Amino acid sequence: MSSPRRPNLELLEYTITLAVENVRGGKGGPFAALVATDGKVIAEGVNLVTSTNDPTAHAEVVAIRRACEALGTFQLTGAELYTSCEPCPMCLGAIFWARPAVVFYAATCIEAAAAGFDDALIYRQIALPGDQRIIPMIHVPTPRSGHSFETWRHQRQRVDY
Amino acid sequence: MSSPRRPNLELLEYTITLAVENVRGGKGGPFAALVATDGKVIAEGVNLVTSTNDPTAHAEVVAIRRACEALGTFQLTGAELYTSCEPCPMCLGAIFWARPAVVFYAATCIEAAAAGFDDALIYRQIALPGDQRIIPMIHVPTPRSGHSFETWRHQRQRVDY
Repeated sequence: MSSPRRPNLELLEYTITLAVENVRGGKGGPFAALVATDGKVIAEGVNLVTSTNDPTAHAEVVAIRRACEALGTFQLTGAELYTSCEPCPMCLGAIFWARPAVVFYAATCIEAAAAGFDDALIYRQIALPGDQRIIPMIHVPTPRSGHSFETWRHQRQRVDY
Repeated sequence: MSSPRRPNLELLEYTITLAVENVRGGKGGPFAALVATDGKVIAEGVNLVTSTNDPTAHAEVVAIRRACEALGTFQLTGAELYTSCEPCPMCLGAIFWARPAVVFYAATCIEAAAAGFDDALIYRQIALPGDQRIIPMIHVPTPRSGHSFETWRHQRQRVDY
């Protein structure tokens, strides 16, 4: 087992600086993130939800998308993600799909909640059955539901991810 | 309390057709989604992870981003989201931030797992403390961590979301 990585404090502090600047510039919420490899910044991201009308444009998602674009890959193997705040469930999911080696964060989701960003609500909702969530997620069985997966299994040129 | 919405089966079947076409066209994984209001499709999305090098380009995320772009808003209040498969944790988070009224899905995450898409792993990881996840998420306290939130609180022209 490899030894645990140590955070680069300069990079972590830099995400806080970016988050402050993002608020002052009116671009979006008080969050910033960056992807680095071997101490070198590959891409930065700030929260752009309101300025780009994109509810998925959280700092981590933006940084991951830009890092992948810069590297020409859909995986961030070996990379480190620094973020000014603990990831929300959406960003946590994005991190698992992008698969960096480690995430370092400064503020906790408790600090975020105190500022009005209630990720904890979403974490609690995830634990409920779909049809009991405040946004109900309803399973509608259909005989064709497996059709796309069958097509996938038989696709020879498919690119797994 | 309003009565539960009923799914438009034609729209749900259409997402399965889009998912099959996406695989056949080599654009990405076997998933598709759409956002509709009053039975009218606002935007469609398919999985574009491998063809765009974007690990966040899941069908639901793509559909939400396009619907918000089309409507010029970062909220999908009152809208319905149809998806060929039960949302993964990232997409579930995106749905909570976009806030449509309801989600209808065809295949379950069990069917997705059988085809090699193990969302269940991420759901299990979410339940663990950050530092015990296979991608460790490490809290690094710093005296400046609350700075961006303070700036946010004092920002008069801020746009809440």
